[in-house]
Amino acid sequence: MAEKPSTWSQLLVGYGEDAHRLGEGRELWLGGVRIESDRGAIAHSDGDVLLHALSDALLSAFALGDIGSYFPDHDPKWKGLESRVILEVVLQKVRESGYRLSQLSAVVTLDRPKLGPHRTSIQQHLALLTGLPEKRVGLTFKTSEGLAPDHAQCRVVVYLEPLPEKQGEKS
Amino acid sequence: MAEKPSTWSQLLVGYGEDAHRLGEGRELWLGGVRIESDRGAIAHSDGDVLLHALSDALLSAFALGDIGSYFPDHDPKWKGLESRVILEVVLQKVRESGYRLSQLSAVVTLDRPKLGPHRTSIQQHLALLTGLPEKRVGLTFKTSEGLAPDHAQCRVVVYLEPLPEKQGEKS
Amino acid sequence: MAEKPSTWSQLLVGYGEDAHRLGEGRELWLGGVRIESDRGAIAHSDGDVLLHALSDALLSAFALGDIGSYFPDHDPKWKGLESRVILEVVLQKVRESGYRLSQLSAVVTLDRPKLGPHRTSIQQHLALLTGLPEKRVGLTFKTSEGLAPDHAQCRVVVYLEPLPEKQGEKS
Ligand SMILES: [Mg+2]
Ligand SMILES: [Mg+2]
Ligand SMILES: [Mg+2]
Repeated sequence: MAEKPSTWSQLLVGYGEDAHRLGEGRELWLGGVRIESDRGAIAHSDGDVLLHALSDALLSAFALGDIGSYFPDHDPKWKGLESRVILEVVLQKVRESGYRLSQLSAVVTLDRPKLGPHRTSIQQHLALLTGLPEKRVGLTFKTSEGLAPDHAQCRVVVYLEPLPEKQGEKS
Repeated sequence: MAEKPSTWSQLLVGYGEDAHRLGEGRELWLGGVRIESDRGAIAHSDGDVLLHALSDALLSAFALGDIGSYFPDHDPKWKGLESRVILEVVLQKVRESGYRLSQLSAVVTLDRPKLGPHRTSIQQHLALLTGLPEKRVGLTFKTSEGLAPDHAQCRVVVYLEPLPEKQGEKS
Repeated sequence: MAEKPSTWSQLLVGYGEDAHRLGEGRELWLGGVRIESDRGAIAHSDGDVLLHALSDALLSAFALGDIGSYFPDHDPKWKGLESRVILEVVLQKVRESGYRLSQLSAVVTLDRPKLGPHRTSIQQHLALLTGLPEKRVGLTFKTSEGLAPDHAQCRVVVYLEPLPEKQGEKS
């Protein structure tokens, strides 16, 4: 018996993570926003755990590897790479796959500074970078409760849907 | 060209986390259930990591901030706050957004006591608090394997759908 | 008023985790693939964090407990248990529930060896075990950045849909 057409199996989820150790005299970037802080991510790139976890979640939704496979951190070519560029490359792959991001839900874990006052600017910036409406950019902030006082961490779930002109097509 | 109506983009996911350090002489609450234990969460509230992570996941699905933005733990007004009240406030926001929780899937990490014997009571209690059928309340339990012997941790994914009377409306 | 039929509430998500401490002279298994390594998981079974987290995510989507409830690690009967067998038992439960796995998205955290070169073989093997097309098996790899140098960890999100012959039925 032939399978019935199943439009909803076209919806996709993705999950991604990132963590960076913090050090003094480094910049702290989250979601493409520079956060005032006495410590920042020790990383080859700008160490933006939110953009890295988001980019990995998007790649994972299409089983396209991870950002390490496209931008290996041992390659001097990518030294100082802006994470915004990584996300742009990944979003282009999403579009080429006939999809668009429908929603993201991220948890950032950082002991200090407090991120609450930065939520709106990070949310607006992520909306700008991804093309999502702000109400589809979910951000919650946690402290590590002693588990990771010297790290910034992020975990992200993304939800994706076919581009409107592709909806209803069989995958 | 106008976008085709897209009912399935109305489905929403959310992801939330919580962790609390454990201490002697404290109560241990999980999913609104008091667990017999020689240690409990050190927290301003009852320290229920399951209800906290769930509440944050729900807020995140609608980009409504996090529980810290509604119930700041430095505010003496919220000292001893029952997490059940937090969840009720959050579920009211979900309803006001025209949605209902469709499913939750949570991992609780705790070294001891063993949580398996408490699964049914936690599941039933969460079903009661959320209005979900029990078969939509997924709970798995892990030990920390040495990574966090003095903490209770929880991570939750939620899935939401428009209230039946709202289904098919454009968002 | 009767609820309108709601096919999309039949979609299910699940989330699962696993971690094992690493030790010398042990085998390292990931997604059913033996990885060349000087350290492997210290576990009662083969310690495959990817298959364990995946199996728990699937059970969680149906609120069927966790792998610890079916295969308790204190029971000598399950000593040396192959995780492939655990996953087979769990996938059978998924089918009996009228569902099939639609997609998985997993993050494996391990400091060494580098997993990138093993991505294709793990992906192919997981596709074989689950019946998923490879493009629905999302795998990203991270190092622990100092947070867990002696552990293998995995977190997995799964997405499920009713078996084609069940689609459109009320749940
Ligand atoms: Mg990174
Ligand atoms: Mg809490
Ligand atoms: Mg295990």
